[in-house]
Amino acid sequence: MKLLYSPASPYARKVLVLAHETGQADAITVQGATPSPTAGAPDVTAHNPLGKVPALILDDGSCLYDSRVICEFLDARSKGPRLFPEGEARWDALVRQALADGLLDAALITRYERVLRPEGLRWDAWDAGQIGKIEAALDRIEAVVADMPVLDIGTVAIACALGYLDYRYPDLAWREGRPATAAWYAVFEGRPSMTATEPPKG
Amino acid sequence: MKLLYSPASPYARKVLVLAHETGQADAITVQGATPSPTAGAPDVTAHNPLGKVPALILDDGSCLYDSRVICEFLDARSKGPRLFPEGEARWDALVRQALADGLLDAALITRYERVLRPEGLRWDAWDAGQIGKIEAALDRIEAVVADMPVLDIGTVAIACALGYLDYRYPDLAWREGRPATAAWYAVFEGRPSMTATEPPKG
Repeated sequence: MKLLYSPASPYARKVLVLAHETGQADAITVQGATPSPTAGAPDVTAHNPLGKVPALILDDGSCLYDSRVICEFLDARSKGPRLFPEGEARWDALVRQALADGLLDAALITRYERVLRPEGLRWDAWDAGQIGKIEAALDRIEAVVADMPVLDIGTVAIACALGYLDYRYPDLAWREGRPATAAWYAVFEGRPSMTATEPPKG
Repeated sequence: MKLLYSPASPYARKVLVLAHETGQADAITVQGATPSPTAGAPDVTAHNPLGKVPALILDDGSCLYDSRVICEFLDARSKGPRLFPEGEARWDALVRQALADGLLDAALITRYERVLRPEGLRWDAWDAGQIGKIEAALDRIEAVVADMPVLDIGTVAIACALGYLDYRYPDLAWREGRPATAAWYAVFEGRPSMTATEPPKG
């Protein structure tokens, strides 16, 4: 299997963390790709018409996307730990994944607003609305972090979201006023799956 | 169960279509909500910190989001048809859902760009990049539509995406050059689940 990947993408990181946690990292060949929202990268669009990473190219040439689909697929073929629970626990895990992905959607869109969009075309109310979503999601995480299981797709997604904030939004200082999340992440970010997938420095 | 809903939201429509197809429409009370990306609606953020619809409030007060999670939850409790296949067919269905959701993500973000953002702050390259994603997704749908099953979560998502283009992007004329998709949708949009959930006119 070949994973179209960008080291800066938190969604791609989520896939790789799950691959590590389920013992499948060696089964995946990572191929770098750098798509942009304004210009699709041909090496990506040939497989995923949406032009986004991560995308997982299977041995038969078919392609799976987006990160949620790839994560569930890899989990289903895991011979070790499983991160998508069955039964009632599934919904709690999937909602936490949706919470983390939603935080990331807001963080990515704000990154495009602040960095990619020409300076004169930026819109403060948009920026503020998206940052508000990030803050509200962080507050929800703080409220539920003590009740989370050690490891499921929800905790992986939350860890990747927090890691992205450290990477791209250090000034947001997400730990302030959220001691439970800060303490949880201090442990989780030390997992081998997390240290093996850290975003590039600088 | 109470569904926080906007009649203009294609993701909310996807949930309601699935509810109809699985015989659960009567079990859901729809509650109108009109969140915006720049100002979260308090009646939504109290349940979903991301401030988006759809969100499904369960009888115990807990809340499920986003649309994918709600759809899978409702499907799992269906006593009738099931739209999330098990086994290998699952990945094809989930990829088609991701394709349709990705098309909609691009369509929604472009709607915000063209309608919500002040005119002087709009960015042509962003608009063009997102429309390019929509066109590429439509071309992929055209390539696979003949091989789709009659009904699964992927076909529901694709139908809701096409319905949204008819609603918000009539000038895009998505049927042009895509006769197979046009013929497929002409049949699918006649399903009672689709006619019961049409977006408002005008």
